[in-house]
Amino acid sequence: MSGSTFGGFQGIVFDAYGTLFDVAALDRVCATVSDDPTAFTHMWRAKQLEYAVLRTVMDRYVDFGQITSDALDYTATCNRVDLEPIRRGELMRAWQELPAFMEVHLALDHLHAAGQRLGVLSNGTRQMLDPLLRHNGLQEYFLAVFTSERVQAFKPHISVYMLVTERFHARMNEILFVTANGFDVAGAKSAGLSVCRVNRAGTPLDPLGAEPDLTVRDLQELVKLLLGDPDSA
Amino acid sequence: MSGSTFGGFQGIVFDAYGTLFDVAALDRVCATVSDDPTAFTHMWRAKQLEYAVLRTVMDRYVDFGQITSDALDYTATCNRVDLEPIRRGELMRAWQELPAFMEVHLALDHLHAAGQRLGVLSNGTRQMLDPLLRHNGLQEYFLAVFTSERVQAFKPHISVYMLVTERFHARMNEILFVTANGFDVAGAKSAGLSVCRVNRAGTPLDPLGAEPDLTVRDLQELVKLLLGDPDSA
Repeated sequence: MSGSTFGGFQGIVFDAYGTLFDVAALDRVCATVSDDPTAFTHMWRAKQLEYAVLRTVMDRYVDFGQITSDALDYTATCNRVDLEPIRRGELMRAWQELPAFMEVHLALDHLHAAGQRLGVLSNGTRQMLDPLLRHNGLQEYFLAVFTSERVQAFKPHISVYMLVTERFHARMNEILFVTANGFDVAGAKSAGLSVCRVNRAGTPLDPLGAEPDLTVRDLQELVKLLLGDPDSA
Repeated sequence: MSGSTFGGFQGIVFDAYGTLFDVAALDRVCATVSDDPTAFTHMWRAKQLEYAVLRTVMDRYVDFGQITSDALDYTATCNRVDLEPIRRGELMRAWQELPAFMEVHLALDHLHAAGQRLGVLSNGTRQMLDPLLRHNGLQEYFLAVFTSERVQAFKPHISVYMLVTERFHARMNEILFVTANGFDVAGAKSAGLSVCRVNRAGTPLDPLGAEPDLTVRDLQELVKLLLGDPDSA
């Protein structure tokens, strides 16, 4: 899709974990408790997502901090890791100190400077997200941070995506949602948002019956499509 | 829980995949397409469950045969396996020829002989389940086979579990639901059924906010609790 035909959005809203912030970076702190930190991190993240979706289907909401904590306990038990309270605290706090992907800061800076209204839409809580945005110096770019707490359900449930129209006073398809998570592509498309998939690793898309409007390798590529090449502007 | 206090159910309903039938046995047919058939089987099954739950959250139902097929395609692509149509057909058919776990036949025989009304409640379709029950010679034991097709949603959504009361004319907690799947324990308890967890591998229970009424190692242990030791009867 060329830059000349893609754009004119009333707002651009980003998923947080995996899209703006690198969850795989948890393996550094997981190395303090596991001999295979990559596998430990992978299971922790997979269980976190699994529990969020299962609880939404069962209508048994607890907040994403609790879900992250439950997923850690299960992962530790499965890996026969006896988590001391201090280590446990470090692992949980690491979610508030995840690094943003390399190109994120500059990409948001260009979009913000161009007058785009930006937001974050995440399954996380404000208590998890606000420190994370501050830690990365990104909070100034966002007009709004939408979270699952408001609707007591998790993405990909439509009620979470619907939050964005209220604040941006726009139709769903006038808002561009940007995500690296396959389930989030399908959920956002099903809800009626315009969707950009970020596919940094070149992985196939889960076949869930909905395709993104656009796929990019990273946010720099998205910015070029939306604004033209910012370096030559 | 002792046999003297556990029993008196109006019906006993079993989950199919993983509870009556051994999904891990797919690794034999997966060995025809993958050098790591255990990992291939594990991913196929995990994606099948993931897609079922995600589609339920998004209200984008397709039947479990289609979901199993989608999960196979994704798993093959991720593993760089180019599935020929003949091999693909063999892999899909293997779901209709899964072996029952060793003790299942005798356990069902004892319960049936004792006059218990038995059923199956599965995310699978009748087209997948009927041949599977016939293949294992188990169809005669079951008064009813309840499937997700009727409600166009998948377990652990409450609507699927609600199907059992209609046929058995009993209150939810008067029916014992037997499952090896952690999400199914939580879903069935949330829906109000009495629940027996089968934990063959001794794995921890996913922390989803609901505990089973009883945990057994296999169906033989359950039969002993319900009927006393059948071999001495």
